[in-house]
Amino acid sequence: MKTEILTMLRQADGYVSGQELCDRLGVSRTAVWKVIGALKEEGYEIDSASRRGYRLKESPDILSESEIESRMHTKWLGGKVVYFGETDSTNTQAKRLAEEGAQHGTLVVADMQTAGKGRRGRSWQQRPGETISMTFILKPEFAPDKASMITLLAAHSVAVAIEKVTGLSVQIKWPNDIVIHKKKAVGILTEMSLSLEQDSIHYVVVGIGVNVNSTAFPDEIASMATSLFMESGRRVCRSGLIAEILACFEADYEAFLQTEDLTRILGDYNARLASLDTQVRVLDPKGEYTGVSRGMNERGELIVEKEDGAIVNVYAGEVSVRGLYSYV
Amino acid sequence: MKTEILTMLRQADGYVSGQELCDRLGVSRTAVWKVIGALKEEGYEIDSASRRGYRLKESPDILSESEIESRMHTKWLGGKVVYFGETDSTNTQAKRLAEEGAQHGTLVVADMQTAGKGRRGRSWQQRPGETISMTFILKPEFAPDKASMITLLAAHSVAVAIEKVTGLSVQIKWPNDIVIHKKKAVGILTEMSLSLEQDSIHYVVVGIGVNVNSTAFPDEIASMATSLFMESGRRVCRSGLIAEILACFEADYEAFLQTEDLTRILGDYNARLASLDTQVRVLDPKGEYTGVSRGMNERGELIVEKEDGAIVNVYAGEVSVRGLYSYV
Repeated sequence: MKTEILTMLRQADGYVSGQELCDRLGVSRTAVWKVIGALKEEGYEIDSASRRGYRLKESPDILSESEIESRMHTKWLGGKVVYFGETDSTNTQAKRLAEEGAQHGTLVVADMQTAGKGRRGRSWQQRPGETISMTFILKPEFAPDKASMITLLAAHSVAVAIEKVTGLSVQIKWPNDIVIHKKKAVGILTEMSLSLEQDSIHYVVVGIGVNVNSTAFPDEIASMATSLFMESGRRVCRSGLIAEILACFEADYEAFLQTEDLTRILGDYNARLASLDTQVRVLDPKGEYTGVSRGMNERGELIVEKEDGAIVNVYAGEVSVRGLYSYV
Repeated sequence: MKTEILTMLRQADGYVSGQELCDRLGVSRTAVWKVIGALKEEGYEIDSASRRGYRLKESPDILSESEIESRMHTKWLGGKVVYFGETDSTNTQAKRLAEEGAQHGTLVVADMQTAGKGRRGRSWQQRPGETISMTFILKPEFAPDKASMITLLAAHSVAVAIEKVTGLSVQIKWPNDIVIHKKKAVGILTEMSLSLEQDSIHYVVVGIGVNVNSTAFPDEIASMATSLFMESGRRVCRSGLIAEILACFEADYEAFLQTEDLTRILGDYNARLASLDTQVRVLDPKGEYTGVSRGMNERGELIVEKEDGAIVNVYAGEVSVRGLYSYV
């Protein structure tokens, strides 16, 4: 009921009468009054005026199932929300839930991760209240060889969502880092479980870590990491950003299902690419080389033009790509 | 210590003196005597003769960590054994253990599974004491696209192990069912978890279910299912068969790592193929067709010669293959 009352207060233009809340939820005045009290205790500023009812003046930047659910405007993604104040890693929890039969679209969110990991096992700094650690579970019906494109969809969705919410211009470092002014603000880690006999996907978990309100980073990563707060100068409401990421991903995913490739987001993705038409170094285990990035293709590969004019389609899993003189 | 004493008794040709057991294990006579007592309670028949020591006369067909470990002769596979009297499914337990960091080669065994599953979710009959339900965890370093071959390796290893232990001739129904006189005796279910960004395998679990001492099957599957007991007329010691399966798989897997394909087992696998040079029906979702099976290739595909002479390499994940008039 907390979610419903929060949603109604949030959608209202002004006051919502106690009677209206009672009628719509089919509960007593006392029940409504108790929930309002609980919300106030959590930090919501709610104005109660006799005859007019209740008005939500300000929401605290807290994460809870009710807070996240009251912000959401998706059809199926985040249909179930599982919230942890603190957990080892939302990917680990999501995998456990998926093994236990959690439904397609289930969202796991933690206020703080104690064992979050990025690519190559680099640890991702976490302080309570500063970051978003979220993972959603997908149970796709397409073949496993299409799944690597999900991580590119996620990068695109997060980029678009951050732009909508903060007004910042963000870039994507192919395949799936989000960078602002050449510093990383978001990491994405996608994992899959499948049956080898049936060549079918059990589930995919898409883990997204966003530096939202962080004010500083340890020295060793300060030159490479940033947060939305540090770039925009404004604190960002985490539940609002989570809701926007879910809405963007849901739309991107549904478009992806039409063609089973990245055609629909390709222009939009490449428009944000950090390394478009710039020199890149390809760290191929078979031998490094440099070339000019010509953008991603519809299969998610980076098109690199080598110095001799040869075109190489670089597959994300195999190699790492860097700017010639920097990480980006 | 139970494992060590059981192993020494088993390896001995005749009696092992109490003193020898004490010396080798560095424990007191009383300690040895207690373990012998415990083994007798589990059903082991142990002869104790004064001056000569102990002799293992007969082992019960029980599964326990000690029983399995005392039979094993592998280098790394089954290095750790996790035993359950009853569990939902050994694959589920193995996946959970793998997520929690279980080492390469860890073996999960259950006396009875309550939720075991075969391909396409068919349930596999289980009665306590009659079947082997085992799953081992692999943490390979090769690329995910090689992993589908593990299931073919497993089919080969299990076929060879059953032949060694029972003297029966068994056949393989490509890709990974073991059949005896055209009835299924073994099911294999291989699952994988991987990172999509790094294109690297977290782990693979190989689940093997063997109808060992079953005496009958329910009507609806009686025409398709059999057990080693029903075919050989003799009860088979399950721990001995588990040990042999592990030994065969370890050898096959190490051979596989040399070439990262099935070259080394190819001749042996095809010699046991149920459908070699016989007509098969290929249930391709894009359209069924018939042809003559010409055996598996080194990538694990079934080579099918169509009526017009065209050769198709059938990939296991995509299609199902049947004999023209029967399951095999």
